[in-house]
Amino acid sequence: MKKIHVVGLGLLGGSFALALKKIMPQIKFTGYDTNSQNQADALSLGIIDEAKTEADLDTDIIVLATPADTLPSLLTKALDKIGSQTLVMDFGSTKSNLCSVVSMHPKRAHYLAGHPIAGTEYSGPKAAKADLLDRKVFIVCEMEKTDLHLKSKAYEVLEALNMKLRFMDPEEHDSQLAFVSHLSHISSFMLGKTVLDKMEDDKNIFDMAGSGFASTVRLAKSSPAMWAPIMKENKKNILEALSMYIVNLSKFRDRILEDDYEGVFREMEKINKIRDILDLE
Amino acid sequence: MKKIHVVGLGLLGGSFALALKKIMPQIKFTGYDTNSQNQADALSLGIIDEAKTEADLDTDIIVLATPADTLPSLLTKALDKIGSQTLVMDFGSTKSNLCSVVSMHPKRAHYLAGHPIAGTEYSGPKAAKADLLDRKVFIVCEMEKTDLHLKSKAYEVLEALNMKLRFMDPEEHDSQLAFVSHLSHISSFMLGKTVLDKMEDDKNIFDMAGSGFASTVRLAKSSPAMWAPIMKENKKNILEALSMYIVNLSKFRDRILEDDYEGVFREMEKINKIRDILDLE
Repeated sequence: MKKIHVVGLGLLGGSFALALKKIMPQIKFTGYDTNSQNQADALSLGIIDEAKTEADLDTDIIVLATPADTLPSLLTKALDKIGSQTLVMDFGSTKSNLCSVVSMHPKRAHYLAGHPIAGTEYSGPKAAKADLLDRKVFIVCEMEKTDLHLKSKAYEVLEALNMKLRFMDPEEHDSQLAFVSHLSHISSFMLGKTVLDKMEDDKNIFDMAGSGFASTVRLAKSSPAMWAPIMKENKKNILEALSMYIVNLSKFRDRILEDDYEGVFREMEKINKIRDILDLE
Repeated sequence: MKKIHVVGLGLLGGSFALALKKIMPQIKFTGYDTNSQNQADALSLGIIDEAKTEADLDTDIIVLATPADTLPSLLTKALDKIGSQTLVMDFGSTKSNLCSVVSMHPKRAHYLAGHPIAGTEYSGPKAAKADLLDRKVFIVCEMEKTDLHLKSKAYEVLEALNMKLRFMDPEEHDSQLAFVSHLSHISSFMLGKTVLDKMEDDKNIFDMAGSGFASTVRLAKSSPAMWAPIMKENKKNILEALSMYIVNLSKFRDRILEDDYEGVFREMEKINKIRDILDLE
């Protein structure tokens, strides 16, 4: 492993490079970001050693860590001119459309569809942290479609980063992520909006906010440049999850409206089993 | 200050006693919990020095730290037989109904309506922590209705605990709390429910959950015995907040449905200003 090229020098791309440089200092990192300030920051923070629009032909791995809607075209272009020993992998939060776009590409075997389950509400290279990916899940889709030899390059770095590999198909991935990740972001953004709307009457309302609100609304700080494209790329599954969520909220509202507090209690009690599930991890 | 009696030896009552015992070790704490296991735990954890159903007549402060729907009757009964130098204060999350129930009580001046903005998703005496209340906001309602001399007893202990006093009227309190606290709990519980429902198809869905989901769903671990009564006591304001939330979610869903991702982006960008507001604190 000698050379890695990272496209998109933000939170994920930056954290990946910072972590790997500690473990494999011999690797040269090149990279590129359409935001020139981010690219300059990535250079000065030591995320990349050299800024380059195109990966060298002897690059081992090209990592695409850009917003979800830019990936289909970036990935296609990368495969079009990829070196014979180069693997390209992406870090996108949606997988179905991407896998389908490149399914007939002659260099499909050079691609590994990936998704690290890691992040914070912050973005950009300055938010990157060397420990962000440590012991996190890395989902791989359609593993059987990637060349065995090239795939081993990805596994080498992912193992070095202590990441836990999980394999699933792209449709399953997108459906599950709509529920455990994309919906959380929407619920948090809309909670933020509802309280901001209320703030127009009550200027000091945030003084009353405790740690519970801060935790529940945290994801509303996330980057729209990353999240609006996810809504587009995973539209069908997100609409399903969001509709179920709205139905559940409406039923809960009906219980309160009808003074059915025993029903409210029983409902909450059932949901409490999430304690055991989350504490297992 | 010689004696404090705590009714309800859970997270809040327990944390209050543990913290104050460190700062004012001369105070004797008596207390009571309808749950006999909690009461035994509170004794063995040193939250109270002696279990007592009724406060002694020379008690300085009686603290009511029980679920919101039990407070009107507990408060009325406490005032009925209160000692001449005793103040009673409560830690309830709703204030309007409670203040209105005791508004004509001959001993109204012995009562201070309070609400510490502090908590965790855990409950019971074992969840109590001496630093839970440290530097948190303590809301006082209808301060003018409490006897000046008795009120100073409360201020003495709240200041010793480093709590930040805020004064507001009960209606304003309940309306604001519906938005910044009660709604967060509902959004979190219903997020938990939506993912649990989905789990019936996808058993391993929680493997895919990252820190974002964990943070957003954290409040769904909260105690139904505390939270169902809040829905009842603050029905009107909670219905208003919840309805606004559902409308916001439905409008957001419509944008996705209509492929208006620019609208989605702009909406998220506006909500991002919550970053500045929350980081100010």
